[in-house]
Amino acid sequence: MLTVFGDIRSGNCLKVKWMLDLLGKDYSWVETDIMSGGSRTADFLAMNPAGQVPTIVLDDGRTLAQSNAILLHFAEGTPYVPEDAYDRARMFEWLFWEQYSHEPYVAVARFQRLYLGKTASEVEPRLMERGRAALDRLEAALSEDEWLAGASPSVADLALVAYTRLAHEGGFDLSPLPNVRRWIARVETVFGIS
Amino acid sequence: MLTVFGDIRSGNCLKVKWMLDLLGKDYSWVETDIMSGGSRTADFLAMNPAGQVPTIVLDDGRTLAQSNAILLHFAEGTPYVPEDAYDRARMFEWLFWEQYSHEPYVAVARFQRLYLGKTASEVEPRLMERGRAALDRLEAALSEDEWLAGASPSVADLALVAYTRLAHEGGFDLSPLPNVRRWIARVETVFGIS
Repeated sequence: MLTVFGDIRSGNCLKVKWMLDLLGKDYSWVETDIMSGGSRTADFLAMNPAGQVPTIVLDDGRTLAQSNAILLHFAEGTPYVPEDAYDRARMFEWLFWEQYSHEPYVAVARFQRLYLGKTASEVEPRLMERGRAALDRLEAALSEDEWLAGASPSVADLALVAYTRLAHEGGFDLSPLPNVRRWIARVETVFGIS
Repeated sequence: MLTVFGDIRSGNCLKVKWMLDLLGKDYSWVETDIMSGGSRTADFLAMNPAGQVPTIVLDDGRTLAQSNAILLHFAEGTPYVPEDAYDRARMFEWLFWEQYSHEPYVAVARFQRLYLGKTASEVEPRLMERGRAALDRLEAALSEDEWLAGASPSVADLALVAYTRLAHEGGFDLSPLPNVRRWIARVETVFGIS
């Protein structure tokens, strides 16, 4: 059976869970405690040498990692991957931007607060500045469009919402970002996220 | 005409150039000096609010950013995007890993040496450690396989080779990584990189 090795508090892992649930896939979830080295054991590194969750094992035993790659794998052929070539390219643009310019700040600030127990003043100011810049960029993009890539919800919305909806846990204030807040509500509704 | 805004010393920009050249696409290259704020002007930010190169403008005036998204857009339907669903998923895995676990260390160390003029001892040790770990992971992956995703060269090889072949400029020593060195030569040959 399809197996997901994940940390239920991780946005990257939750993305995968939401997509599998939405598509009605049967899978087993193996909760993996990254704080106690659960993703650094020899067995885990044999599955994913990067030592990161989520990592999945397909029915045939082959493994796959990187949350956005996993989303794309399962969403291929569904309405959540746009057919239009430009919309698909924009979806990819947002997915790469998420991992390069959003997650390393918004998710890492949250990690430092939630997992490491740091106080607001102990989180590096650079993480907060760049995280706010990422959220501001989302706010501007969503002032024109309801969804990030094309006229309907896609994998890009699911991937971006994962840490955006939890940004307050990293000390980010979403109250001045009404477009982002309305978009979060839309994405949660469409993808059945509670 | 297709226009590429890029910095010719940037691996992320060179990736795009190589792919367009390989596919025989007609394009105009606008050299963009990121050090003097060329990617932060109002005109540039209107094209790409992330303020990053490469950014392209398609024939119809629509814009696209993120090097790996651009590669995927042009490579779709060519042999460089695997048809097999698992091979394609692995290609995506490597592309996201490149932007999350390789580029932020290997390329950033190079940036600090080459663009900012830092000496070896001035580059953060963390960048060097994580960059070496990324290169070691590539070495291990290439001990079993000739190409990163499936049995033939893909966008993943092109994306990963961009900064790996320039890693020495960031102070990384590739001499203990024979599989990586042989793979670089193979990728350069296949994609016509000189």
